[in-house]
Amino acid sequence: MSYNSFGRLFRFTTWGESHGPAIGCTLDGIPPRLSLDENDIQKYLNERKPGQSKYTTQRQEPDAVKILSGVFEGQTTGTPIQLMIENVDQRSKDYGDIAQAYRPGHADYTYNAKYGIRDYRGGGRSSARETASRVAAGAIARKILGDSITIKAGMVQMGHHTVDRDNLDWDETRNNPLFCPDPVAANTWAAELDKIRKAGSSIGAVIEVVADGVPAGWGAPVYGKLDADLASAMMSINAAKGVEIGVGMGAAALSGEENADQMRPSPDGPDGAPEFLSNNAGGILGGISTGQQIVARFSVKPTSSILTPRKSITEDGTATDVMTKGRHDPCVGIRAVPIAEAMMAIVLADHMMLHRAQCG
Amino acid sequence: MSYNSFGRLFRFTTWGESHGPAIGCTLDGIPPRLSLDENDIQKYLNERKPGQSKYTTQRQEPDAVKILSGVFEGQTTGTPIQLMIENVDQRSKDYGDIAQAYRPGHADYTYNAKYGIRDYRGGGRSSARETASRVAAGAIARKILGDSITIKAGMVQMGHHTVDRDNLDWDETRNNPLFCPDPVAANTWAAELDKIRKAGSSIGAVIEVVADGVPAGWGAPVYGKLDADLASAMMSINAAKGVEIGVGMGAAALSGEENADQMRPSPDGPDGAPEFLSNNAGGILGGISTGQQIVARFSVKPTSSILTPRKSITEDGTATDVMTKGRHDPCVGIRAVPIAEAMMAIVLADHMMLHRAQCG
Amino acid sequence: MSYNSFGRLFRFTTWGESHGPAIGCTLDGIPPRLSLDENDIQKYLNERKPGQSKYTTQRQEPDAVKILSGVFEGQTTGTPIQLMIENVDQRSKDYGDIAQAYRPGHADYTYNAKYGIRDYRGGGRSSARETASRVAAGAIARKILGDSITIKAGMVQMGHHTVDRDNLDWDETRNNPLFCPDPVAANTWAAELDKIRKAGSSIGAVIEVVADGVPAGWGAPVYGKLDADLASAMMSINAAKGVEIGVGMGAAALSGEENADQMRPSPDGPDGAPEFLSNNAGGILGGISTGQQIVARFSVKPTSSILTPRKSITEDGTATDVMTKGRHDPCVGIRAVPIAEAMMAIVLADHMMLHRAQCG
Amino acid sequence: MSYNSFGRLFRFTTWGESHGPAIGCTLDGIPPRLSLDENDIQKYLNERKPGQSKYTTQRQEPDAVKILSGVFEGQTTGTPIQLMIENVDQRSKDYGDIAQAYRPGHADYTYNAKYGIRDYRGGGRSSARETASRVAAGAIARKILGDSITIKAGMVQMGHHTVDRDNLDWDETRNNPLFCPDPVAANTWAAELDKIRKAGSSIGAVIEVVADGVPAGWGAPVYGKLDADLASAMMSINAAKGVEIGVGMGAAALSGEENADQMRPSPDGPDGAPEFLSNNAGGILGGISTGQQIVARFSVKPTSSILTPRKSITEDGTATDVMTKGRHDPCVGIRAVPIAEAMMAIVLADHMMLHRAQCG
Repeated sequence: MSYNSFGRLFRFTTWGESHGPAIGCTLDGIPPRLSLDENDIQKYLNERKPGQSKYTTQRQEPDAVKILSGVFEGQTTGTPIQLMIENVDQRSKDYGDIAQAYRPGHADYTYNAKYGIRDYRGGGRSSARETASRVAAGAIARKILGDSITIKAGMVQMGHHTVDRDNLDWDETRNNPLFCPDPVAANTWAAELDKIRKAGSSIGAVIEVVADGVPAGWGAPVYGKLDADLASAMMSINAAKGVEIGVGMGAAALSGEENADQMRPSPDGPDGAPEFLSNNAGGILGGISTGQQIVARFSVKPTSSILTPRKSITEDGTATDVMTKGRHDPCVGIRAVPIAEAMMAIVLADHMMLHRAQCG
Repeated sequence: MSYNSFGRLFRFTTWGESHGPAIGCTLDGIPPRLSLDENDIQKYLNERKPGQSKYTTQRQEPDAVKILSGVFEGQTTGTPIQLMIENVDQRSKDYGDIAQAYRPGHADYTYNAKYGIRDYRGGGRSSARETASRVAAGAIARKILGDSITIKAGMVQMGHHTVDRDNLDWDETRNNPLFCPDPVAANTWAAELDKIRKAGSSIGAVIEVVADGVPAGWGAPVYGKLDADLASAMMSINAAKGVEIGVGMGAAALSGEENADQMRPSPDGPDGAPEFLSNNAGGILGGISTGQQIVARFSVKPTSSILTPRKSITEDGTATDVMTKGRHDPCVGIRAVPIAEAMMAIVLADHMMLHRAQCG
Repeated sequence: MSYNSFGRLFRFTTWGESHGPAIGCTLDGIPPRLSLDENDIQKYLNERKPGQSKYTTQRQEPDAVKILSGVFEGQTTGTPIQLMIENVDQRSKDYGDIAQAYRPGHADYTYNAKYGIRDYRGGGRSSARETASRVAAGAIARKILGDSITIKAGMVQMGHHTVDRDNLDWDETRNNPLFCPDPVAANTWAAELDKIRKAGSSIGAVIEVVADGVPAGWGAPVYGKLDADLASAMMSINAAKGVEIGVGMGAAALSGEENADQMRPSPDGPDGAPEFLSNNAGGILGGISTGQQIVARFSVKPTSSILTPRKSITEDGTATDVMTKGRHDPCVGIRAVPIAEAMMAIVLADHMMLHRAQCG
Repeated sequence: MSYNSFGRLFRFTTWGESHGPAIGCTLDGIPPRLSLDENDIQKYLNERKPGQSKYTTQRQEPDAVKILSGVFEGQTTGTPIQLMIENVDQRSKDYGDIAQAYRPGHADYTYNAKYGIRDYRGGGRSSARETASRVAAGAIARKILGDSITIKAGMVQMGHHTVDRDNLDWDETRNNPLFCPDPVAANTWAAELDKIRKAGSSIGAVIEVVADGVPAGWGAPVYGKLDADLASAMMSINAAKGVEIGVGMGAAALSGEENADQMRPSPDGPDGAPEFLSNNAGGILGGISTGQQIVARFSVKPTSSILTPRKSITEDGTATDVMTKGRHDPCVGIRAVPIAEAMMAIVLADHMMLHRAQCG
């Protein structure tokens, strides 16, 4: 029982604050004899790290990961893996304002209400910097899942704009700075986001993450459900406000005839496996995978670090206005894409091991 | 680590199948010296139990709860509370069809894929009958929360129809058989639902659940977040496909200026507490409560137990058509309302104790 | 995180008080398709149940177990198994004295100190009656372990008398009412225990439990150690005050030369496996099984329910004397034997699944 | 569920290998606003660190701890605390022999049997070096417990020699290099241990740890027992083979009259609290603290790193002899003393928070 841990058998605990000396995570329960070196992790961290394009914060962090334990001669040993990422670009900022006033839309006030103390530097523990640890852990989760399971995510909505599902190509997400699976939309959105950025404003987004190759049978009733764990995983990402599986909130508008995914014998699946004629379920029924593509989606709110002054109060309860100068992400949805993939990988790796434990 | 358990310190485990001799739950960690008898629980069970109106399944279950342990002379003792509800109306049905074929939209296939066996009678473990245990556990969670916290839920969308937010009155939800907080909508929807029912069809819904009186400071970073736990709790409810906190998926369409809830000094709150000028956050920032109303929402898909035949396969992989005769819920959203309240109460009670443990 | 649960993947939670309507346990995570009916469990319960000989309490309890969930057509389904044992012989006793005064050596005072309330009838939750649930759970754990692992326990010390290790025969433990593996000692001890019983006194004991057939590799560093879990399991048994693995406390008196179990190539083991020339380690090194016999031992204190008056106080702090009239166990070590076997089986089943989860 | 974690609410996870770049631990759930800096931890680490006297291994490790997170301006923030200790003196050794052969009495073979791989350098994860993390975590646990609870440990048996209980003075343990609470015995034992050391041999020991000031009411039935957790904690320490609470294994030899601790009204305790006339229970009844001194004891086996060659096999199953040259601890019981205190503090801090969570 740990507030900063996730997963049951694939278990990781993250630590560190935005402007402390380092952040990192401890992974326990990792199977032995997986080949692993720092490059296996670094390539995913590089996708998330700031300063990759003008659409993300200009904080300069190499996000160079070090493996401190649990790997010997290029292989996991089955003992805890400690990953550490040193913070580099955290020294310059002046926190005079933030130290005293609560930024609207941030966790400043709630941390203070809970703990009576907060590390206000760069958001401290509530900073999205923590998500680097998730991406690192996700890289190891992918090792466990192996090549037969592929996980892809992309931004499918930015503000009021949604992708054209006919254009969807998950291989496109790394070909544009918005990590958008619709290359046409990517262009349009980029122009708009540039305007938002220049105006010192920000915008929300929806990220979709899909997993192919997950066999039927992962997950469990009734609180160990695969979708309940995905909901928790995605909602735990900074700025997330909604999570959907398959048709998601849209299920409300469907009739029973429309919603239920019909089945036919699978022409090429394992014996007795169905071919589903649709995937409203997002690959999960009764909390257990169906063998179809797993489909999850979540919204992220726009960052509240904007140039427009907003009404707030100081720690001692005086009215003030807060404006966030300096670097920020105009759309945090972009960098949420590799995080979403990581969390999907983590949930799946955990359930793979849970399934193996119980069902052999 | 238990698939059928929920909560950390307020910990309950449910057991039982739809057509077994009984269902129930084991609650552990409950504070001592709470006054508790069966009536305290029964009143909530009566709200969820089937056969209350023509809009819910006609299965006749008294859902009479028995307390088998953990209560002595009308008070909790701090030791495990065992609640048992005997199944009464489970004998009549013929399961010949279901035993062999997978019902589309149900968990029949996935349970078989996972376990290689399933109790097909009435859905077995995947039946919504399990939720009676949640409602029972929720009644005890409310005891822990006390009278200063009130939890109300209602159906706010049925099919394409949404409530008029100007009509919203949470005290109205028990005054209409649809558990709808908009009395005007309730009337219209009832007529439509009757048509759906008579046609042997079904429809989806959205349930909203709100909690008032929750102090600032409950919850925790970064995987023990109050909203992550609510997401898990709501997504674990049968038929749920999406979960939202505050503006939810709508956050994607907002700008930073629109989204961040501004603050002013609270005229009558505790020293240094803010008054928020809006509640897009749904009462949670950084995974920790703000002191505002907690607002969660989730969609439920329409039941797949409908009169129209749907394409499916049998266990041995032969194409077949499946039609569900007999009693069913035309809109499972109705009975999801007391379940939603129970899960909210459970998550809050757990976090109340977690907060007390860490922060005194 | 549950006070009344044990195990990680083989997870069970017990509930119930000595004189409530029933006791039982909820098991979660059990593999599917194990053949299981009530007789599989009952045969172990019959070994533990009271009134089997003049050496155990004369309370009459059939200890008839009912399976309420998780089994379908004679097989486990992978969903929670609820076992219930109704209390039968709990009504006759007068608790006037116990209700007010704390019995020395019992948990009366500590329960009150913790909870401010206690079910004083027959010891309530602190009664050894709870161990029936352990024995029931153990029967299912044995099903998971299969026939290649055999678990045997017996009483190896009673008072100052210890078994003669040259006489040790684990098949003898069920051939004498003392569950002693040394048939010669069993006779002598029986005569002495009869005297103790008639005098209304009681005596302590040591129980040894051995498991054969456990492969090398179960367990894990450094807090998930097989021996740490065994220590917790055995110490959680009522009246236990000490736990030993292998040479146990005797390790203190050994030199490095004497203690370390030397190895030679195994003539008939798997490739590369050693044959150990001794077993001071009790089959566990570094928290992981060696492939040798697992050997655990624990002491149980004599019951404090004796005819001699002992000094105590009442709930309101007045000096009083307490004497326990009526039925009791002159040596609780006897009935601890099947409990010890059950706990060993539970720990091993849990670690078998843990090992499978991580190492495939 | 994590193999390398301990505690429920006071939760820490250790990581690192003997000869990797660093070791450390992640602590989660720590209350906020405890004053904490590295010196608070270092002073305990200095007691455990090697090379303090000729009676401990001559490995030179400064064991300098760094706090990487969770502390801000000298106070804990309630978020995860990461402690890191860099390994310094791990480079010189040649592991040619150990890499191929299993050292008798070590975990070499079992790690290989489990994981199919092992970091053989200095014992890797199974090295007692891990216990530095425990001592560091214990320092924080003591902060939570506050000054009203004092924890002291000492070596009470070395080989066949036991302390004279009449000489026992817990304040003496840091006045002699053997951490022995009997100053007379300390002298005698030191001379003997010097002989053992020079002979390249080793000897076992018993460590006793006592906690004063623990209020009645901490702990819980029936698997969350304070003594069950202490048993797990102590047995998880490297080389531990037995654990005792109060009279421990000696309970077997007592009669009911001798064993049960009688009570009288406490002349100066809280209202209704008893004064116990003895403490056979070691301060715990029914898994819950009585308010008396908590007394735990555990044996540690002699290290198997000795100069005398012992029979063993190589990884490929060939017979060989193994002799451990170089630095080692002639009696690991000495350095186990600060570890025992740390584990006691950790268990108590965890139960303090658990009690507060449930009982307010």
